[in-house]
Amino acid sequence: MTVVKSTISDSARQITGDALQSTLVDLLGLSLIGKQAHWNIVGPRFRSIHLQLDEVVASAREFADTVAERAAALGVSPDGRPETIASAFTLPAPKEGWVRDSDVVGVMVESLEAAIARLRERIEATDKPDPVTQDLLISITAELEKQRWMFAAENVARES
Amino acid sequence: MTVVKSTISDSARQITGDALQSTLVDLLGLSLIGKQAHWNIVGPRFRSIHLQLDEVVASAREFADTVAERAAALGVSPDGRPETIASAFTLPAPKEGWVRDSDVVGVMVESLEAAIARLRERIEATDKPDPVTQDLLISITAELEKQRWMFAAENVARES
Amino acid sequence: MTVVKSTISDSARQITGDALQSTLVDLLGLSLIGKQAHWNIVGPRFRSIHLQLDEVVASAREFADTVAERAAALGVSPDGRPETIASAFTLPAPKEGWVRDSDVVGVMVESLEAAIARLRERIEATDKPDPVTQDLLISITAELEKQRWMFAAENVARES
Amino acid sequence: MTVVKSTISDSARQITGDALQSTLVDLLGLSLIGKQAHWNIVGPRFRSIHLQLDEVVASAREFADTVAERAAALGVSPDGRPETIASAFTLPAPKEGWVRDSDVVGVMVESLEAAIARLRERIEATDKPDPVTQDLLISITAELEKQRWMFAAENVARES
Amino acid sequence: MTVVKSTISDSARQITGDALQSTLVDLLGLSLIGKQAHWNIVGPRFRSIHLQLDEVVASAREFADTVAERAAALGVSPDGRPETIASAFTLPAPKEGWVRDSDVVGVMVESLEAAIARLRERIEATDKPDPVTQDLLISITAELEKQRWMFAAENVARES
Amino acid sequence: MTVVKSTISDSARQITGDALQSTLVDLLGLSLIGKQAHWNIVGPRFRSIHLQLDEVVASAREFADTVAERAAALGVSPDGRPETIASAFTLPAPKEGWVRDSDVVGVMVESLEAAIARLRERIEATDKPDPVTQDLLISITAELEKQRWMFAAENVARES
Amino acid sequence: MTVVKSTISDSARQITGDALQSTLVDLLGLSLIGKQAHWNIVGPRFRSIHLQLDEVVASAREFADTVAERAAALGVSPDGRPETIASAFTLPAPKEGWVRDSDVVGVMVESLEAAIARLRERIEATDKPDPVTQDLLISITAELEKQRWMFAAENVARES
Amino acid sequence: MTVVKSTISDSARQITGDALQSTLVDLLGLSLIGKQAHWNIVGPRFRSIHLQLDEVVASAREFADTVAERAAALGVSPDGRPETIASAFTLPAPKEGWVRDSDVVGVMVESLEAAIARLRERIEATDKPDPVTQDLLISITAELEKQRWMFAAENVARES
Amino acid sequence: MTVVKSTISDSARQITGDALQSTLVDLLGLSLIGKQAHWNIVGPRFRSIHLQLDEVVASAREFADTVAERAAALGVSPDGRPETIASAFTLPAPKEGWVRDSDVVGVMVESLEAAIARLRERIEATDKPDPVTQDLLISITAELEKQRWMFAAENVARES
Amino acid sequence: MTVVKSTISDSARQITGDALQSTLVDLLGLSLIGKQAHWNIVGPRFRSIHLQLDEVVASAREFADTVAERAAALGVSPDGRPETIASAFTLPAPKEGWVRDSDVVGVMVESLEAAIARLRERIEATDKPDPVTQDLLISITAELEKQRWMFAAENVARES
Amino acid sequence: MTVVKSTISDSARQITGDALQSTLVDLLGLSLIGKQAHWNIVGPRFRSIHLQLDEVVASAREFADTVAERAAALGVSPDGRPETIASAFTLPAPKEGWVRDSDVVGVMVESLEAAIARLRERIEATDKPDPVTQDLLISITAELEKQRWMFAAENVARES
Amino acid sequence: MTVVKSTISDSARQITGDALQSTLVDLLGLSLIGKQAHWNIVGPRFRSIHLQLDEVVASAREFADTVAERAAALGVSPDGRPETIASAFTLPAPKEGWVRDSDVVGVMVESLEAAIARLRERIEATDKPDPVTQDLLISITAELEKQRWMFAAENVARES
Repeated sequence: MTVVKSTISDSARQITGDALQSTLVDLLGLSLIGKQAHWNIVGPRFRSIHLQLDEVVASAREFADTVAERAAALGVSPDGRPETIASAFTLPAPKEGWVRDSDVVGVMVESLEAAIARLRERIEATDKPDPVTQDLLISITAELEKQRWMFAAENVARES
Repeated sequence: MTVVKSTISDSARQITGDALQSTLVDLLGLSLIGKQAHWNIVGPRFRSIHLQLDEVVASAREFADTVAERAAALGVSPDGRPETIASAFTLPAPKEGWVRDSDVVGVMVESLEAAIARLRERIEATDKPDPVTQDLLISITAELEKQRWMFAAENVARES
Repeated sequence: MTVVKSTISDSARQITGDALQSTLVDLLGLSLIGKQAHWNIVGPRFRSIHLQLDEVVASAREFADTVAERAAALGVSPDGRPETIASAFTLPAPKEGWVRDSDVVGVMVESLEAAIARLRERIEATDKPDPVTQDLLISITAELEKQRWMFAAENVARES
Repeated sequence: MTVVKSTISDSARQITGDALQSTLVDLLGLSLIGKQAHWNIVGPRFRSIHLQLDEVVASAREFADTVAERAAALGVSPDGRPETIASAFTLPAPKEGWVRDSDVVGVMVESLEAAIARLRERIEATDKPDPVTQDLLISITAELEKQRWMFAAENVARES
Repeated sequence: MTVVKSTISDSARQITGDALQSTLVDLLGLSLIGKQAHWNIVGPRFRSIHLQLDEVVASAREFADTVAERAAALGVSPDGRPETIASAFTLPAPKEGWVRDSDVVGVMVESLEAAIARLRERIEATDKPDPVTQDLLISITAELEKQRWMFAAENVARES
Repeated sequence: MTVVKSTISDSARQITGDALQSTLVDLLGLSLIGKQAHWNIVGPRFRSIHLQLDEVVASAREFADTVAERAAALGVSPDGRPETIASAFTLPAPKEGWVRDSDVVGVMVESLEAAIARLRERIEATDKPDPVTQDLLISITAELEKQRWMFAAENVARES
Repeated sequence: MTVVKSTISDSARQITGDALQSTLVDLLGLSLIGKQAHWNIVGPRFRSIHLQLDEVVASAREFADTVAERAAALGVSPDGRPETIASAFTLPAPKEGWVRDSDVVGVMVESLEAAIARLRERIEATDKPDPVTQDLLISITAELEKQRWMFAAENVARES
Repeated sequence: MTVVKSTISDSARQITGDALQSTLVDLLGLSLIGKQAHWNIVGPRFRSIHLQLDEVVASAREFADTVAERAAALGVSPDGRPETIASAFTLPAPKEGWVRDSDVVGVMVESLEAAIARLRERIEATDKPDPVTQDLLISITAELEKQRWMFAAENVARES
Repeated sequence: MTVVKSTISDSARQITGDALQSTLVDLLGLSLIGKQAHWNIVGPRFRSIHLQLDEVVASAREFADTVAERAAALGVSPDGRPETIASAFTLPAPKEGWVRDSDVVGVMVESLEAAIARLRERIEATDKPDPVTQDLLISITAELEKQRWMFAAENVARES
Repeated sequence: MTVVKSTISDSARQITGDALQSTLVDLLGLSLIGKQAHWNIVGPRFRSIHLQLDEVVASAREFADTVAERAAALGVSPDGRPETIASAFTLPAPKEGWVRDSDVVGVMVESLEAAIARLRERIEATDKPDPVTQDLLISITAELEKQRWMFAAENVARES
Repeated sequence: MTVVKSTISDSARQITGDALQSTLVDLLGLSLIGKQAHWNIVGPRFRSIHLQLDEVVASAREFADTVAERAAALGVSPDGRPETIASAFTLPAPKEGWVRDSDVVGVMVESLEAAIARLRERIEATDKPDPVTQDLLISITAELEKQRWMFAAENVARES
Repeated sequence: MTVVKSTISDSARQITGDALQSTLVDLLGLSLIGKQAHWNIVGPRFRSIHLQLDEVVASAREFADTVAERAAALGVSPDGRPETIASAFTLPAPKEGWVRDSDVVGVMVESLEAAIARLRERIEATDKPDPVTQDLLISITAELEKQRWMFAAENVARES
């Protein structure tokens, strides 16, 4: 059932729709693993990272909503059901149970870096098909790169 | 690694921990399918139900956070990772793709009713082991029963 | 016409529904007589009690709404029509016309005490049938007992 | 006991006091039946009308307070006790139990129209005795006519 | 220097200008004596009346500003200089030094009653010349009559 | 299609509807030319007048909404379409292109004066047919006269 | 009179200025027809669409302001006078008088689709001449496409 | 009637009380002449100075309240009655009627300079008797000197 | 002097009163030692724990107020005087002088654990005598257990 | 352990530290007895004084925090532990149990007067050693003297 | 020490890092000279331009923060130390001492024009290396061009 | 050009002006190096110190504004241009590039201590010439000493 017409061509919609759907999965996954870490972190930086993770979650949730509604606006039904996220989400994530603060910071840096690499590919892919979607992906990248820097800077002294 | 000591006995912690973990999965699942419906609903009641679903999602997210932190407070590591939700979430959910508004209302009534039935069992189970957790489960039930009524009342006229 | 299904058994619904309906009448009645006193009070404590009465009214209105929606959530149609309140409301109330401030305080103490006694019976009655409703009645009692204390403390010096 | 002197003549006070007292009853009655409908409405427009009714209730409560305090300001004791409303309120109201959404809209149109017709008579009656009270009645009429239009517009398509 | 043209006739401007100028003096005077009482009141109702007086002052200041700008809008230069208020203000006022709370209440009732009587004359006088100004005077009267009632109700029990 | 019944007689509705429709056009026109001046003004008073114009626009938009909804409330369909405004709007307006600040102030004084003169006629015309509408027109006039004064006072020194 | 110098070349300014001026007309037109529909809509979805239209109007007004000020910033005098809109606005619009809710939704979908198509051409045209303006047009397109989707989703069930 | 005891010696109270009483008169007078200028100013800087004067008035009113309550706190009854201000206020003030903007700025500079000179004397006088009052006078001086600078800077270009 | 009557039986009041009085002492004590640690903490986690302690203090103060007013509402005079707290407070507390951050975290975990153990006994004790008080004690326990978890999680890595 | 260096000389630190420590005890003590009175007051002025006491408590708490952090900033460890307050607090305080409103007012006047006398000595003592601390003590004195006046004014009529 | 890894290639990082560093210097410099002008401006437009300059400063500060954090996010250490700004800032700036209002406006136009020209070059330079940074530079340019227009429009009438 | 007259003598103005100008440089410098550290900090306390530095920057910016406007108010033109800060700022500052968290804390302690020592000299110097300026310098010292303590307490454990 194609109920909502698109304002762009079929081929543009194909590329843009794929970019948005995989971004949606990454963001919903990030919001879930961000909360998982928020609840299971232990260590002397507990409070500081506990609060920082909630900022990642808030950003991920808000962008997920914008991305899904952007897909709908282009006539592409977004899919954010539990089973879809579970099978399609491939970013690094914290393991089960309590997690030490330095490990949380480490896994967040890795997960955000992987998400950013995938976003930069989609920015390139959507340049011609839909500059409106590209602009949204650019905004998400800016935010995730800022979050990545803050975790990375936090982890510098670990080895010293 | 049992890093956070519990303030209740081991057996009480077992029962309470199970109740909280399964409630966490139900709430995270509800928040995901609520958003899925929020994005994919079509039909003359689009705007009205689209907004109502966001209230369900907001409640589910907030209660999920409280429930997970309650588990942690009792020394039980909460698990809200994508794969956990996907495998443990069993409530009725909207199918893939666009969904007609009356179908959305119908599935929300069913999903909330199933969640409520499970919560009422946990309220009974936690009465002795931990009245503090029981009180939290009572609050969640009150909110979900209110949401269920509003969807149910909305759907009455469907048959008429 | 039983349009909204209940999430509890028929017998539990009967007891809980009665408790909620009579609480609804008491609260709507309190909100009306609280306003009546708010408008008709005279005496040197006019401003102080005039403002305090509006807090009683605000609490009564907010709880009345929650109580009525709780009834609806259980599949029980709440009844707050003028004629219902007039015939079912039995708490002490201010007489017609202007009322002296000390008399207002006195009648509010009596009216709240009567309401509290009735609520305590309903708390006991709903313990088994529906702990969710019981929890709501407990919250209402806590608020009304606080209000009663403040009027009672205000009236102590009357005799001295 | 005439405890508060009036700033207008006895005859003016008589006419104005009657106009305010009957307006008070209409507004308190509207606030009660608005809530009754708010709780008992069922049908596909449930959420939309449920929210709209709360705006009617909020307006009715706020104006009732202003009207009663206006009466007091003129030395007329306002009467908003349950039994007074029950015996003096004559506007159309929803019947007992659950009410279909289209019926709710219909009865609100009728009730508001009746209230407006009565207000327009009082606007005329108070023109000479007290332009200050007349100005208040004009404000109330403006608000109720706006509410009436919105329910009426909502009901147009019922027959089509 | 008549620098701002009027939108009404010369004769209408004369009557309306006089009504506004004398209202301005009454309101500025009320704001000054309200503060005087606010600072000098003593007695067991100190806090209650101290706060109530600030509401009179706030109303008087806000209406004074509206009245003066209304005069300017009609091309009439408003005069609120200290010497003008001192010579033109004729309402009852608290005497020098500390004032007992019951005396404060008494003088506020008298002063507001005098202000109201003068406003009612101006409402009549401006009916034809400028209904826009009349509407403003009606609003001021409504507020001052409400304030008068509250002080009057506060003073009822003084003799009992 | 007369879909919304009126609460006033046909003849009253005719007069009142005409007054509201022409006021609507004046206000929508004012909001458009206010913005036009807001964007095109140049000169040393740029910032000061640029900000003042936005207050005119905000008032005009808000009153336009109230006026149109008042018409609808009386069963009169309001007409604010571009072509209607273009053909019916007759107040003085800024010319095309950049406009010097003193010229902007001048044209605003003229345009507001013309709007006020037309409103005063409608206040008189609606006195008997509908005092509720008359009261709204009085409020609009008060605001526009205040705006006119502020532009007029601003322009006084131009000649000196 | 070219009073404000441009920061881009003459040819770039020509293209960008044209894009901004025609976008301004579309947005001002949308804000007017959005309000027209807001006031004249009738039918069972009255309240829901009535509120949604105000969100379109708010977006259109805010973007119109940004677009006009962007033109001015480039030394191009923006033209938003009534006669300019009337003659240059070509998007589908609601007809005169009351409009059924489903027709309102239909015309909004069509009008937004036409506006979007025109915006996408301007995004392409301004890519080289002025990426700053292009970025603004991209933001407007994102918002209008979101609005279009919501109306389109609302209208799906019309045929079923 | 000396009803409120002082926390400082009689001689200290005498000096401090005089300083506070004369500061009170200066501030109340400034608030009145600030408003007088706010209403009567004309000229191309109307809006800019009209707004700035309201900041002077707001400061003067707030400090007047603090100063009067400080006097009361020291057992000195403050006197802010109209006749007291009229006879004791000696600062330069705008003349009757409309006042040109440059003249308003000029008189404000002079009036604030005179007020500051008097405050600096009182700062010295209260140094020993009451450092708490001195601290308050220092705060007032800081604010009035800031206001004076802004008017003075505004007037520099008058001669050029 | 038993000035405020109780709404529960004498024996119930005895048990409940004792539970509330000892809870009051624990909470006031916690608020004081929380501030003591807030001011005296030193070490690399200074800022993080300094802020967290203020959240403990805020919770303790707010619950202390509710607990004391609950006692008063039951006719039991609450006792929170300095000497009462000093003699009755028995929870672990920081020693005099500056305290290292890890020691602060350690003592807060111990002190909160002791407070929780005592609260859980009171929850059991008040179950029959007064479910309203029990509900309040449950809320306090939930909050203190959450605070305890956050300090405990923060301290995990100390040994590693 | 002297962990935080001071920015002033040792002797200055000794005097200033003593002044701050004893002020801290007075303020924490005032906050505790203020709450004690807030909960235990009875009599016709219950509500008025109950609210006023909370303002004293809020001021005392906020200043206690500033005073303790000022001590820490000077390298002096502040001591606000329960046993310290109990042994060092010497101001008049309400007796155990319910207290009549006039007695509450009386004891607050006495307690504040004693606190003020001690503060004035410390203002003198810190003049040379640390004008920054002196400035803080001056602010506290201003606030407490204002509070004292309000209680004193409230109690005037007690004897009459 | 390269402590934060980059998410883009070395060559891209070189170009983007240079663009961000020089933009940072321009914005910090603008914030300093904007404040310098804010404090030193004299003339009849003092208040109007004084306020406008604070908006430039607020924008410059906020964008400087975003630009510096963007550099850090790309692994480039931003340099905003006083000596760096002093040596690298090359935009036109106000001279030492008091500055006439028209001169302030003139220098702000020039300084903003120079900053814009430099930004437009960087927008082009970063197009390929990093579209995320380019998007940020576009936003800054939009804001500075708007500010430039407002100063330029303000200065038009200087020559006339 | 001495355009703004002073309210104090020439010699007093000389001393006070110097004190204000050097304080301005210190505060502007602190705001720049605070931001520099905010952006370049790395290590496990990144987030905690990153946030704390922004509080220093906010304080420094706000006080810098007050100090500069105080200078202007005394007729002294403040100088905050980049080159002035670069040449006159002498407080310790972070070196170029990324900086470890413990080094950031260390340099902030040193820099604030140096600033405080200089402020204490100026407090003494301005005592006679201008107590109003002295009061401002006292407020700044209080804030910087509080900031210094928090960094110093944070760094205590570094050696342990």
